[in-house]
Amino acid sequence: MHILVTGAAGMIGRKFAERLAREGHLGARRIVKMTLSDIVAPVPAKAAFPIAARADDLAAPGIAETLVKERPELIVHLAAIVSGEAESDFDKGYRVNLDGTRALLEAVRKIGGGYKPRFVFASSIAVFGAPFAEIIPDEFHLTPLTSYGTQKAIGELLLADYTRRGFLDGVGLRFPTICVRPGAPNKAASGFFSNIIREPLAGKEVVLPVPDSVRHTHASPRAAVNFLVHAATMDTNAIGPRRSLSMPGVCVTVAEQIAALGRITGEKAVKRIRREPDPLITRIVAGWPERFDPVRAVKLGFEAETSFDAIVHAHIEDELGGKVG
Amino acid sequence: MHILVTGAAGMIGRKFAERLAREGHLGARRIVKMTLSDIVAPVPAKAAFPIAARADDLAAPGIAETLVKERPELIVHLAAIVSGEAESDFDKGYRVNLDGTRALLEAVRKIGGGYKPRFVFASSIAVFGAPFAEIIPDEFHLTPLTSYGTQKAIGELLLADYTRRGFLDGVGLRFPTICVRPGAPNKAASGFFSNIIREPLAGKEVVLPVPDSVRHTHASPRAAVNFLVHAATMDTNAIGPRRSLSMPGVCVTVAEQIAALGRITGEKAVKRIRREPDPLITRIVAGWPERFDPVRAVKLGFEAETSFDAIVHAHIEDELGGKVG
Repeated sequence: MHILVTGAAGMIGRKFAERLAREGHLGARRIVKMTLSDIVAPVPAKAAFPIAARADDLAAPGIAETLVKERPELIVHLAAIVSGEAESDFDKGYRVNLDGTRALLEAVRKIGGGYKPRFVFASSIAVFGAPFAEIIPDEFHLTPLTSYGTQKAIGELLLADYTRRGFLDGVGLRFPTICVRPGAPNKAASGFFSNIIREPLAGKEVVLPVPDSVRHTHASPRAAVNFLVHAATMDTNAIGPRRSLSMPGVCVTVAEQIAALGRITGEKAVKRIRREPDPLITRIVAGWPERFDPVRAVKLGFEAETSFDAIVHAHIEDELGGKVG
Repeated sequence: MHILVTGAAGMIGRKFAERLAREGHLGARRIVKMTLSDIVAPVPAKAAFPIAARADDLAAPGIAETLVKERPELIVHLAAIVSGEAESDFDKGYRVNLDGTRALLEAVRKIGGGYKPRFVFASSIAVFGAPFAEIIPDEFHLTPLTSYGTQKAIGELLLADYTRRGFLDGVGLRFPTICVRPGAPNKAASGFFSNIIREPLAGKEVVLPVPDSVRHTHASPRAAVNFLVHAATMDTNAIGPRRSLSMPGVCVTVAEQIAALGRITGEKAVKRIRREPDPLITRIVAGWPERFDPVRAVKLGFEAETSFDAIVHAHIEDELGGKVG
């Protein structure tokens, strides 16, 4: 099968492409080609099949058509402007997250002639906005409070309609916060959730800007890639017309995150966390959903870690070669 | 104030514009100009203020900019391709209902410089799709099962985001079925709800294609115009970030509709209804929502009729000069 991945230079896209390159197949099907697209050309991993790595502006005229003209059987659409930038640059957010997504859906539709690829769309829990239910059910209404969340909610609606009309076979995944993110600490308001694990594990000091009581839902990068693989290979007949699913994750407080770190590395790593409350970050985080009840996704076979210890272990295995510094 | 109405040649737009022409003011504010736009030029009523009637393709480049360049303080956006046509002509539905709406929102945003009109958007209960709650709460999730409903749901999301960002002051109204629609019987699947009242009142025979037990929610054209006037004049601070509201209406069975007709006109009119079940229409109607609990709209002061008798009386007063044929 031929697989197209947009946003393939991002963290999840890179890990997804690397896994497919390593395994050479997806489910029971052998991969014969992969096209990796992003605003900067992704660096492809070594693979037994050809990989085309492209630098593309998906929203520019003709680009989406070029990407789908070879009729990839699977499209994994990860390309997006992140939340903070979509909020600070209104035009860019709508251009990439709405126009880019629509261009890709339209390019698929216009091929026609029975072409009906599996289309996996990365959505986000940002489609939900406060006030929340204490535990957010699958039926919670779409109430985004950011432009990013609005654009993802629109993407979900389009995905469902294009699927219903028979143009493609869509699955939308509402990712929880991905933790532990590898790489350097970033300045996203959510960055500390990963920083407080990754940095102490690397022997470095780190700042915790919120109270230990903050509760949030996490899944590892490895789980996120598993979500994509499952969405790409599952029987979609069981989904029904509501094509976007809140993914499972581990719901813990920051205190429980830190306790997991302590169990795995001892108190020395924990002591590298310095509490330095930041009122702005604390206020932003207070507006985020805490806990989901992703009944549909679990029933459909999506799996995440079941403890934060497992999330820390996944980071140690996948990023640190199994060794704690 | 200057008022812009799109879709002004439609039934609701025409009645709204006629009322404003007659009254000369909206709430406490005197109307100094009205711009009526539709795909065919609306025929303006006589008014004490100037009315510009325009034939416009709202989604065509530059049209939305032209419509808002005089900075109307109120925009009532009714222009839309109806449900059936949006389903049969995918391109046209998205072009008018999504691109047209977005063009208008964008034209407002691009004026900037403190321009922040009240923007009333006609949405629809078609944003909801089965399976339904028995009584649909304000918090029911957006699950459209038609392209029309998808386009309206996207309009609601955009309206909320443009409002949150401060570009305009949006209010979205999810209209129930409008009954009794004046004019000739139409072939919309929902047409019979009006036909079975209007035609017997005019001394004509009519076909009822569904069982008497079918339940549905209705508001009169007069109530629909009241919704628009209230949305145009209300204090929007009380709405909060969830800018679209399910409107109130009268929830009755077809049997109760017919009983109201009988109370008002006697059995002679009722005998003009011929039961001729149509399996296709019955199946379509079975997929529609029956009953709403529009707590938010009622609390915010939106009012509809409280009995189907009042809906029949509104038709007799507004369309038949108070006389039953």
